[in-house]
Amino acid sequence: MRIVLDAMGSDTHPGPEVAAALQAAATWGDPILLAGPEEVLQPMLRAAGAAPGSVRVIHAPEVLEMTDKPADAARGKARSSMAVGMELLKTGEADAFVTAGNTGGAMANALFRVGRIRGVKRPALTGTFPVRNGQAILLDIGANADVRPEFLVQFAIFGSLYAETVLGRPMPRVGLLSNGEESGKGNELVKEAYPLLANAGLNFVGNIEPKEFYAGKADVVVTDGFTGNVLLKTSEAVASFLISMIREQIKSGLTTSVGGLLAKPAFKRVGAILDPGEYGAAPLLGIDGLVFVGHGRSDARALVSAIRVARQAVAGGLLPAMRQEIRRRLTSGIAEDVE
Amino acid sequence: MRIVLDAMGSDTHPGPEVAAALQAAATWGDPILLAGPEEVLQPMLRAAGAAPGSVRVIHAPEVLEMTDKPADAARGKARSSMAVGMELLKTGEADAFVTAGNTGGAMANALFRVGRIRGVKRPALTGTFPVRNGQAILLDIGANADVRPEFLVQFAIFGSLYAETVLGRPMPRVGLLSNGEESGKGNELVKEAYPLLANAGLNFVGNIEPKEFYAGKADVVVTDGFTGNVLLKTSEAVASFLISMIREQIKSGLTTSVGGLLAKPAFKRVGAILDPGEYGAAPLLGIDGLVFVGHGRSDARALVSAIRVARQAVAGGLLPAMRQEIRRRLTSGIAEDVE
Repeated sequence: MRIVLDAMGSDTHPGPEVAAALQAAATWGDPILLAGPEEVLQPMLRAAGAAPGSVRVIHAPEVLEMTDKPADAARGKARSSMAVGMELLKTGEADAFVTAGNTGGAMANALFRVGRIRGVKRPALTGTFPVRNGQAILLDIGANADVRPEFLVQFAIFGSLYAETVLGRPMPRVGLLSNGEESGKGNELVKEAYPLLANAGLNFVGNIEPKEFYAGKADVVVTDGFTGNVLLKTSEAVASFLISMIREQIKSGLTTSVGGLLAKPAFKRVGAILDPGEYGAAPLLGIDGLVFVGHGRSDARALVSAIRVARQAVAGGLLPAMRQEIRRRLTSGIAEDVE
Repeated sequence: MRIVLDAMGSDTHPGPEVAAALQAAATWGDPILLAGPEEVLQPMLRAAGAAPGSVRVIHAPEVLEMTDKPADAARGKARSSMAVGMELLKTGEADAFVTAGNTGGAMANALFRVGRIRGVKRPALTGTFPVRNGQAILLDIGANADVRPEFLVQFAIFGSLYAETVLGRPMPRVGLLSNGEESGKGNELVKEAYPLLANAGLNFVGNIEPKEFYAGKADVVVTDGFTGNVLLKTSEAVASFLISMIREQIKSGLTTSVGGLLAKPAFKRVGAILDPGEYGAAPLLGIDGLVFVGHGRSDARALVSAIRVARQAVAGGLLPAMRQEIRRRLTSGIAEDVE
């Protein structure tokens, strides 16, 4: 299996990427393709005592900056690590691309260099969330701030296939994020999408409120990228606010401080459940290649976890399954034609 | 000051309402008007040994059910406690109305019986959230699933006046909920609303992400009622999920259980900070009367807290301030004309 890793993606690149590449190669035995500037990466690999052939550097002299506009960067910086990595997907020289770089840059490069699966209207950034008794998928979490109802049907198809092939869920339950459980609830988008989803031949379980989402009432929940992003960032903000409040209140007295010390292993286990690094990276589903975008703050462990998820998607045949399902729906007339 | 309390609003009505009415009357010395069926309420008040004149029952024989459609209920059930309470606002016999009943029913009754302040396009349900170092206001949290950009400008005006008169914040900082801090970020609604807010003569601080909202970077944040509702419910869901995980992990071992017991006072203090009952009820701002909607699960303490907030709004002159500000903007041409 050939995974290409963007060496220049994370906030503290390329240290975490080099470490992750070495660890992944050692863990799974397949060489990792590492895209980035040769003159920077080769000395680091030598210094780390990399086994010959375990990590293959793909030279990419340009670096995308956070200040680069995504579309300009995609077109202008043809030799960035992001662009070079995507090209390997396009030519079939790699099976999946993993980056902890800018999401907008990854989206622009993916659209420009790899393109959509034929019949796909919009790709969706797909998040994996810790929920009661496991994990659930939410999409879109930020690629498309404005969507049309029929996009949500495609997101539901992507998410279902992802839940099947990567999370191993047969017949995934698909929900529609709303502000009420009843079928008439929601904004215009939700009200229009509801009947489309109900008739899409999916295991549609209706509207899902955030409470039901976190209760694990659906495997896949679809929403527009604006609301999905707000749900994701609200979750992070509330968890961090709550944990900092608990820490402050525990430290404010001697007895509670002792209690906090004794209870520390419990907090650590909760932290591990919530750690975004545990859930790999967010795939850009709908692109005609497997692209995974990790958090900018990813460390080596989070990047290895992202590579693990990318490998599961390759092994599960996610991309051919997506191509086949979209084609089947196009020809059977269930989905609309190519835009 | 004349506060009318809906006796039949909360999930376990009218027990919490009767207790709250007695407690509020005792606390502030003003009689509470309690709207509901006389034959139910009078015996309860007698049994509780209510001081004569402390609670005045306003007979309302009909009860709104959760299954009643809001608009039908507003028009059809003219003698429900919700309708009778609203009528007292309309006729000027009460200064504020507090209910823990159905939000949709309160909105429909408020629009039908009290109406909007002249010049107001849409009323907004206004939430008070615990944030780092205090409280912040978010609106709309559920009255309008779909809004136009100019509605958000009015929401910002409502929220600013509320933050000034009820929270005592001079020159409240107003933010626009978005999926990125930069001014070009957001969905179409946000991008169109941004320049309107920047030129509305408010203390506009730009786009606010959920993280900044919880960090207390704005006093008032505006959004559509769908996204605001998702933010509210995600916050509740994540807090509850996190707390239940911490509890389970603490109880899973002996040492951590002992630690949890010692740290209990710290958890209690955090619980008090997060308790929605502490923040009173959500006002329906834009209605030509002060209407506060509490949680259906409100107990007597939460209802007393709602009455306290309603009293602050009356004492702070929120309604005349809203009327005056909307009129000033209408005549100066800052706001658009009456629809």
